[in-house]
Amino acid sequence: MEYRIEHDTMGPVEVPAQKYWGAQTQRSINNFKIGGPKHQMPLEIIHAFAILKKSAALTNADLGVLDRQKAEIIAAVCDEILAGDHDDQFPLVVWQTGSGTQSNMNVNEVVANRAHVRMGGTLADAKKSIHPNDDVNKSQSSNDTFPTAMHIAAYQMVVGTTIPGVEKLRDTLKEKSEKFMHVVKIGRTHFMDATPLTLGQEFSGYVAQLNHALRAIKNTLPHLAELALGGTAVGTGLNTPKGYAEQVAAKIAELSGNPFVTAPNKFESLAAHDAIVETHGALKQLAVSLMKIANDIRMLSSGPRSGIGEILIPENEPGSSIMPGKVNPTQSEAMTMVCAQVIGNDTAVAVGGANGHFELNVFKPMMINNLLSSARLLGDACVSFNDHCAVGIEPNDTFIKRHLENSLMLVTALNPHIGYENAAKIAKKAHKEGTSLREAALALELLTNEQFDAWVKPEQMIGGLS
Amino acid sequence: MEYRIEHDTMGPVEVPAQKYWGAQTQRSINNFKIGGPKHQMPLEIIHAFAILKKSAALTNADLGVLDRQKAEIIAAVCDEILAGDHDDQFPLVVWQTGSGTQSNMNVNEVVANRAHVRMGGTLADAKKSIHPNDDVNKSQSSNDTFPTAMHIAAYQMVVGTTIPGVEKLRDTLKEKSEKFMHVVKIGRTHFMDATPLTLGQEFSGYVAQLNHALRAIKNTLPHLAELALGGTAVGTGLNTPKGYAEQVAAKIAELSGNPFVTAPNKFESLAAHDAIVETHGALKQLAVSLMKIANDIRMLSSGPRSGIGEILIPENEPGSSIMPGKVNPTQSEAMTMVCAQVIGNDTAVAVGGANGHFELNVFKPMMINNLLSSARLLGDACVSFNDHCAVGIEPNDTFIKRHLENSLMLVTALNPHIGYENAAKIAKKAHKEGTSLREAALALELLTNEQFDAWVKPEQMIGGLS
Amino acid sequence: MEYRIEHDTMGPVEVPAQKYWGAQTQRSINNFKIGGPKHQMPLEIIHAFAILKKSAALTNADLGVLDRQKAEIIAAVCDEILAGDHDDQFPLVVWQTGSGTQSNMNVNEVVANRAHVRMGGTLADAKKSIHPNDDVNKSQSSNDTFPTAMHIAAYQMVVGTTIPGVEKLRDTLKEKSEKFMHVVKIGRTHFMDATPLTLGQEFSGYVAQLNHALRAIKNTLPHLAELALGGTAVGTGLNTPKGYAEQVAAKIAELSGNPFVTAPNKFESLAAHDAIVETHGALKQLAVSLMKIANDIRMLSSGPRSGIGEILIPENEPGSSIMPGKVNPTQSEAMTMVCAQVIGNDTAVAVGGANGHFELNVFKPMMINNLLSSARLLGDACVSFNDHCAVGIEPNDTFIKRHLENSLMLVTALNPHIGYENAAKIAKKAHKEGTSLREAALALELLTNEQFDAWVKPEQMIGGLS
Amino acid sequence: MEYRIEHDTMGPVEVPAQKYWGAQTQRSINNFKIGGPKHQMPLEIIHAFAILKKSAALTNADLGVLDRQKAEIIAAVCDEILAGDHDDQFPLVVWQTGSGTQSNMNVNEVVANRAHVRMGGTLADAKKSIHPNDDVNKSQSSNDTFPTAMHIAAYQMVVGTTIPGVEKLRDTLKEKSEKFMHVVKIGRTHFMDATPLTLGQEFSGYVAQLNHALRAIKNTLPHLAELALGGTAVGTGLNTPKGYAEQVAAKIAELSGNPFVTAPNKFESLAAHDAIVETHGALKQLAVSLMKIANDIRMLSSGPRSGIGEILIPENEPGSSIMPGKVNPTQSEAMTMVCAQVIGNDTAVAVGGANGHFELNVFKPMMINNLLSSARLLGDACVSFNDHCAVGIEPNDTFIKRHLENSLMLVTALNPHIGYENAAKIAKKAHKEGTSLREAALALELLTNEQFDAWVKPEQMIGGLS
Repeated sequence: MEYRIEHDTMGPVEVPAQKYWGAQTQRSINNFKIGGPKHQMPLEIIHAFAILKKSAALTNADLGVLDRQKAEIIAAVCDEILAGDHDDQFPLVVWQTGSGTQSNMNVNEVVANRAHVRMGGTLADAKKSIHPNDDVNKSQSSNDTFPTAMHIAAYQMVVGTTIPGVEKLRDTLKEKSEKFMHVVKIGRTHFMDATPLTLGQEFSGYVAQLNHALRAIKNTLPHLAELALGGTAVGTGLNTPKGYAEQVAAKIAELSGNPFVTAPNKFESLAAHDAIVETHGALKQLAVSLMKIANDIRMLSSGPRSGIGEILIPENEPGSSIMPGKVNPTQSEAMTMVCAQVIGNDTAVAVGGANGHFELNVFKPMMINNLLSSARLLGDACVSFNDHCAVGIEPNDTFIKRHLENSLMLVTALNPHIGYENAAKIAKKAHKEGTSLREAALALELLTNEQFDAWVKPEQMIGGLS
Repeated sequence: MEYRIEHDTMGPVEVPAQKYWGAQTQRSINNFKIGGPKHQMPLEIIHAFAILKKSAALTNADLGVLDRQKAEIIAAVCDEILAGDHDDQFPLVVWQTGSGTQSNMNVNEVVANRAHVRMGGTLADAKKSIHPNDDVNKSQSSNDTFPTAMHIAAYQMVVGTTIPGVEKLRDTLKEKSEKFMHVVKIGRTHFMDATPLTLGQEFSGYVAQLNHALRAIKNTLPHLAELALGGTAVGTGLNTPKGYAEQVAAKIAELSGNPFVTAPNKFESLAAHDAIVETHGALKQLAVSLMKIANDIRMLSSGPRSGIGEILIPENEPGSSIMPGKVNPTQSEAMTMVCAQVIGNDTAVAVGGANGHFELNVFKPMMINNLLSSARLLGDACVSFNDHCAVGIEPNDTFIKRHLENSLMLVTALNPHIGYENAAKIAKKAHKEGTSLREAALALELLTNEQFDAWVKPEQMIGGLS
Repeated sequence: MEYRIEHDTMGPVEVPAQKYWGAQTQRSINNFKIGGPKHQMPLEIIHAFAILKKSAALTNADLGVLDRQKAEIIAAVCDEILAGDHDDQFPLVVWQTGSGTQSNMNVNEVVANRAHVRMGGTLADAKKSIHPNDDVNKSQSSNDTFPTAMHIAAYQMVVGTTIPGVEKLRDTLKEKSEKFMHVVKIGRTHFMDATPLTLGQEFSGYVAQLNHALRAIKNTLPHLAELALGGTAVGTGLNTPKGYAEQVAAKIAELSGNPFVTAPNKFESLAAHDAIVETHGALKQLAVSLMKIANDIRMLSSGPRSGIGEILIPENEPGSSIMPGKVNPTQSEAMTMVCAQVIGNDTAVAVGGANGHFELNVFKPMMINNLLSSARLLGDACVSFNDHCAVGIEPNDTFIKRHLENSLMLVTALNPHIGYENAAKIAKKAHKEGTSLREAALALELLTNEQFDAWVKPEQMIGGLS
Repeated sequence: MEYRIEHDTMGPVEVPAQKYWGAQTQRSINNFKIGGPKHQMPLEIIHAFAILKKSAALTNADLGVLDRQKAEIIAAVCDEILAGDHDDQFPLVVWQTGSGTQSNMNVNEVVANRAHVRMGGTLADAKKSIHPNDDVNKSQSSNDTFPTAMHIAAYQMVVGTTIPGVEKLRDTLKEKSEKFMHVVKIGRTHFMDATPLTLGQEFSGYVAQLNHALRAIKNTLPHLAELALGGTAVGTGLNTPKGYAEQVAAKIAELSGNPFVTAPNKFESLAAHDAIVETHGALKQLAVSLMKIANDIRMLSSGPRSGIGEILIPENEPGSSIMPGKVNPTQSEAMTMVCAQVIGNDTAVAVGGANGHFELNVFKPMMINNLLSSARLLGDACVSFNDHCAVGIEPNDTFIKRHLENSLMLVTALNPHIGYENAAKIAKKAHKEGTSLREAALALELLTNEQFDAWVKPEQMIGGLS
């Protein structure tokens, strides 16, 4: 490979001749060989930086601290980045400095050098028209830009991927719940036979869980909408013009289409990432809900001959390399694996969030990497589970009917008539002798055949249906 | 010990003669010897049950399904429990059935037997005036009562202990922040010297963290205010009179003074405990915030001779059994230990919450035990930290001044005047040669003595003070 | 209450007149009102301290730095503590200083004052015959005594409670495995019907898991056997006589009956508690194993009419307050709750273990509290699960036979004869039409009736039995 | 793109014309759009599969159940895969079926189709010479191959990357420890000044931690060396020839150069992944150790003017985009972020490990993805931290000397001479009045100038140096 020499305040560095990045990016490549390509800084962060750098440049120009022409060219390069033209210019990994300074400098260098080239210069020029620190990073520090990029990227992922994914699945489950509202089936508590409910009621619980999870996620958005930008190095706003923090937040809101505002307290925004902890906590709650739902679906569909078998799910692929004809609840499996990962990521985020010191938390790249990963995995998994499983769920009437008719827990309906203890006698006798409740009840002479008919009606044991 | 014989549907059991509990409680004692006395079901759950059983009895009477006199006597016994008269009657441990059925029965049995005695009977009577299932548990199941008691107890602990504790500490830190607002000191990022800020600004970040944590906790209260009661065995409300769920929730709200409502979806309330996951998630966020704050306080007060030493904290106790005169940041240590525990408890709660099956989650006692423990520990630790540390924090002016004057990062103020790269030259020269910034700047002839005076003013590097 | 005045280096403190503890214990009571009585320092730690203090006193006397008579009286008081005579003298909570200094001083004070009384003095005497620091704590610091007590208590709990509990359960499962080795049943993968195995084979997997868990736990014991004592304040052994560390470890080994040795590196022993992290990690592995086993047992026993139902478990207690005759897998529930808690505790231990600074980790009480709690809960839960569930497990032949006969996955035996794709055709046809494999196979003319008989023999699909 | 039509037992599927994979791989691509390219199944698993498939083919031929020529061609294709020739043929993501069946089939299909092409056929041929199930997958099931690939890949990563990385760092720290063994410095407990030790002693604690971590990791290798292969669908070994399990494990051991053996109990190997939990637990312990070490290094190097500043670390890159000349402990930051991630991954692995059911755990891809990721990140981070930080650490004598001389805790040396209480008086007086210990001691007339000289010698307070 050919190289050119770039300089930073520490001296010269060899950089691949055709790459836009500069000395500091290259130092990070050289110094942090950890994890490989899968661990690159998420592109969502790079694109959030593009919005940020463009907003900062235009605001700096508006406030008279940056040449308007420089601002325009910086903005134009940011648009190129947002269009995906430079995705291969951001090679740094998550496991770098904990402030994300190196990724901020990666963006500053790429913008400066690309701007220089766009203005007719070449990468080999010793002096560039735009300076990565003095121009692109003007009125900024890594310490306020990186957390700002974190919030922009996180907000967009949650609003653009997680919430729509959950809503899609929620809508399908709601539709199923309504459709199955009169399918009476046995209930199960402690994994054991219990009193009946309808399949629609069972599904309505899932819908309620997802609605609560959505509300919990949305509750965290206002904190996530607060931007650190304007705090610069330690939160005081050193080297920023008056009015900058508010105006640049407004610009970011405008360009991104999301309701971002400047954080009321910049010291918190740099030194702690409780907003990330908060949003990830809500994602973890969602993971807990989805794990319950996906487990239920897999268990309800178990069989086909020797399981619970009360619902049928789509047969998407051969399930076994050795057992011919086997079909498995694979969407539940992908979903529950995602949920386990999100529960683990939540621990990582908490450990990082708790370990900031003084004016800066330096677990930033790790924290946002987990949040973006969890938010996307959950959103994607909901869509996958929805499209390839939930939409195709149907009741398996044969099994539902057989289980309902056999149930001993219908005896509960007798409590108000003959008391808990007598009812228990009936259930125990039937269980012990393998007979029906009716047979046991009559044998014990605790009620008549007619009374049994009148009192034990599964379809009346399910409450008012909503 | 003397025993009497009690019966349940499984037969006779020996029970200590003078105890109010009955056969099912005793079976649980016999069958679950796990963990010992420290692991008893929290009394808060028992007292929440007392509110619940009283509310249920009165509502049952109002709705005509329970004799009014029976309801009154049940209510009277519940008042005795709430007064703490029977705290030694609830010996069961957390590690029992996952539905909490045995603790529900413990309450049912104690109420029934105590009511019988109150009405003039004796514990030895073969037949009791009040039946634990048919009367005390009327219109109820463990499956809806236990989660209801969970929500009542959790709500009360969060509102009565956690939030006031956090607010107390928040208020003190706010007062300190205002008092220290003009104490200019060095900032630290990456644990390294950075540009200055004021001690008050530093503390304002802590206040902002706690305010966000309080908001996050309060966001979870509406979900926690939803009560499962009225769902009975599987959520359908089998064996409850019409209107019962709404009326009994209103009664609980009235007796407890908290805004409880009946859960709109009872299937969710029994099968999932996402509300517990949600509230504990907010407590975990608070733990993350408090760990950062307590760490900062301990590090800022380190020394007394060879540390950071910028604040002084109260000297509460001899710090060492071997090093005479040693004083330690012990309140920070108790606090950070509590925070680590809460982060761990959050994992336990997530694992429990994710593993419900069909109509019932059977990790109930474990989940609520963690929530009550975390909520109390955080509230108590905030008060302890406040009273024995935060209120006594004072700046250590000697160290603050020395550190500020030595700092090389004041050079940042020169960026707008001489550019980042020249400023870096000055800082590096001063660092390398162990001189002051001024000396290095003049030696490099990058600015004049007068310019240095005009541009490098720590007290002007701290932004507008709020 | 009556009080006397005690002094420490900070001045006078009011102490309950009849209690043996002194000023520093009382300061901790006053300064750390966190969590209440359930959060008291585990008695196991206090008793470990008694072994330690006795060993230190005798070793100090042997090495000539402590008067022999003083050593004897200290030893005698330690024996009283070990006999449980003073359990009410250790009121401090876990949430104190992170070094456990206050509990060390609690022991020092109680031993000194009790020794003084034993020698004929009174608690009210201004001057005591034995000094808590200069005598009882001689050649010691909290920083090496507390971690030593941690290791003693942890080792004893793991060896005395956890391992025997697991072994008891393992032995029962092994016995069941052998007994059920020829009970052919359907296998389940992905919760779906699969090829057959025997119930004994299924149980043999549980036995293998527990054996691996036991091995993993035992692997951690050598690290746990290393004692910090002799390191004093920072690991250098300041103020200890020559040979002390080795001799005192030998004395502790002798008195406790466990193979304790002096830690080769005392700096690690004070500054890090990786041994606790290591042992708790093995307990977490055990929890993971037990959760799998307990879940299987609960699912295999599900029903009684509409579940998997292939095994029968003991009916220990009425399972429902509303559903008469219901029996639940309550031992599985207690076990899985314990497992979830241990998984959470593991996170807390990791957070504490990772956050030591310089010469001391100050998460000691929290870490050991979790380890002792997890180790005991697992041991107790294994015994409870064994005695009240595992020993009574029996196959439910009716269900086992029905499920086996219905299975479509017996088709796998045909792969070597007719190929995977033809076998799949048979299974799919049978599944679709609700017929038997034989019917489908013959209808497809892929084999003859005789070939089916010869090739599809469940009892020959289970491999060689061990 | 051009497509060809491939078939499986469910029917035809469009597959990119030039790709070697077949119908089942394509179904997985279509059905699991979760997470994107960063979430692809780790190549280490694919390469482990290549070793496995080759070993299985050769063993099958040896045992007479597979044509020798077929076996040879399968082996040849596996060698191509191991050479990296087909890395773009394995597009499936981790979030697929929890058994990894689809990745097993991906390998089976690629091997079969590539073999067919190698033998002169074309991908478009309707009939292929080698069958993915009947030939490549012969004597195998996904249920035993995937866990075998997990163990092979995990073992290789731990032995090839993690352990050497840790050893490299351990060796450097050991060298530093020896080099710094006589640099006397102040100790710190509770982050507060304590008695002295040497810098070399401090570093020896880190070495001891890493040695214990290495031992813990190595303790887990025997469990990881057990291979599931030969268990096929449910652990019984259905459709395998006699002797296969042992021979194929020996072949894998031979080809991989690692001491793999056949698992003594195959039921455990499929249904539980406690070996993965066990090894990851040891990695978590390592993360806990490294977090402590990296934190210490960052704190010891803090400053350069206003921190602890007792060591100097290499200046690798400009540390700030706004603060000129700033240098940060970035390697510590990358390391501690990795550690936080590993602690989180450990939770994910535990959740997955605990949730297997019956004969199969279906969290396989998630579990191994975390293990491989953690193992690599830790190994890489150790090397990075070593090369760019540890090797360059030097003592900062100025700060070390200043801190040592100022220390009040040297007073501890007086305990044996004047008692703890008198010593405390000296320390307190010096602290209060800002004087030296000597001045305070003389003013209090507790000892003479000569005694002070004789008794307070920091260089004699550090014990015997090893």
